[in-house]
Amino acid sequence: MLTLYYAPGSCALATHIALFDAGAPFETKRVDFGAGEQRRPDYLAVNPKARVPALATEHGVLTETPALLAYVAQRFPAAKLAPIDDPFAFAQVQEFNSYLCSTAHVAHAHLRRGTRWVDAGETDAMEAMKRYVPTSVAKIFELIDSKMLKGPWVLGERYSICDPYLYTLTRWLGDDGVDINSLPKVREHRARMIERDSVKRALAEQDIPA
Amino acid sequence: MLTLYYAPGSCALATHIALFDAGAPFETKRVDFGAGEQRRPDYLAVNPKARVPALATEHGVLTETPALLAYVAQRFPAAKLAPIDDPFAFAQVQEFNSYLCSTAHVAHAHLRRGTRWVDAGETDAMEAMKRYVPTSVAKIFELIDSKMLKGPWVLGERYSICDPYLYTLTRWLGDDGVDINSLPKVREHRARMIERDSVKRALAEQDIPA
Repeated sequence: MLTLYYAPGSCALATHIALFDAGAPFETKRVDFGAGEQRRPDYLAVNPKARVPALATEHGVLTETPALLAYVAQRFPAAKLAPIDDPFAFAQVQEFNSYLCSTAHVAHAHLRRGTRWVDAGETDAMEAMKRYVPTSVAKIFELIDSKMLKGPWVLGERYSICDPYLYTLTRWLGDDGVDINSLPKVREHRARMIERDSVKRALAEQDIPA
Repeated sequence: MLTLYYAPGSCALATHIALFDAGAPFETKRVDFGAGEQRRPDYLAVNPKARVPALATEHGVLTETPALLAYVAQRFPAAKLAPIDDPFAFAQVQEFNSYLCSTAHVAHAHLRRGTRWVDAGETDAMEAMKRYVPTSVAKIFELIDSKMLKGPWVLGERYSICDPYLYTLTRWLGDDGVDINSLPKVREHRARMIERDSVKRALAEQDIPA
């Protein structure tokens, strides 16, 4: 049995959706960031990074969304969530997910997680970061919209572990001050995603809107 | 034939080393960041992100270091650079590389790439970011040293695509204001790496010191 540790609406949603897509047997545990649960010793024993997602497996705990998504695809190959046996095609999957993780998510994180990159006392610098989020996130999503998202799914005709990850980050665009209507392919992708049963189930379990 | 686009000492070094480890046939092309070559149309046609590394293959161009490293491991399986057929073990590889990409590299980038996250006119905010780099990078490397790097190699007894990536980032610690002597396992790992033929060859070709 797999256990996914998540906070509602966080990037853990991507893996949550992928687990439903895979038909995987799993349970979830909610980590209450509002109460600081991610810094309590029992959670740090699961994930010393004090973040979500974490996926407890029978072999140990895994973290980092691109790793979890590839794990789900490779562990449940019948669901065909990634072209795992084709080095080039699989690298394209990882390229996309790595960009979301290290560039798109990081740009968004400058909105509320500024203390990762400046001292907590540097409030002016944190405000400067916040002001730039609409610009940096728009730039990233324009590249996704124009060059990376093939449509109807990220890889083209084939749905993959890239899709729940992209959808998860598009849910943050409103907060980021980016109008999804300026991103036609991303907007269509989001509309297509929220029709999927796996997405509906994950949103319902996390008790968050589409 | 593969072609690796790199800037000397950038994170492209990780893939450069891995290509030598794999015994891969490849050539390299240097991208002169000082002259702004990464923003010229001919390079943007290779990688519209205007960054390195990029790896041109017979199927198309790949970017993002974790994707390139996994590609090298999967395309040249005889070199045994990753446990590609074991979903959990391969996920551990990706977990480590994803952390380097999205957390360690990103923390370092706040030293000189502040304009990714604040407007270019926000010089005070950029100075605040720079001041915090020794703290943020030290925190990340303390976690790597204490919890993630098993030794002698990242995964333990088995050398993998995690090792050249970690080595590449440890080369930046001096600039980041972090004393490698406070990180005993990382320091030993670096000393072990620079004895490898693959590392020596990549450093020589990029004309940079160990």
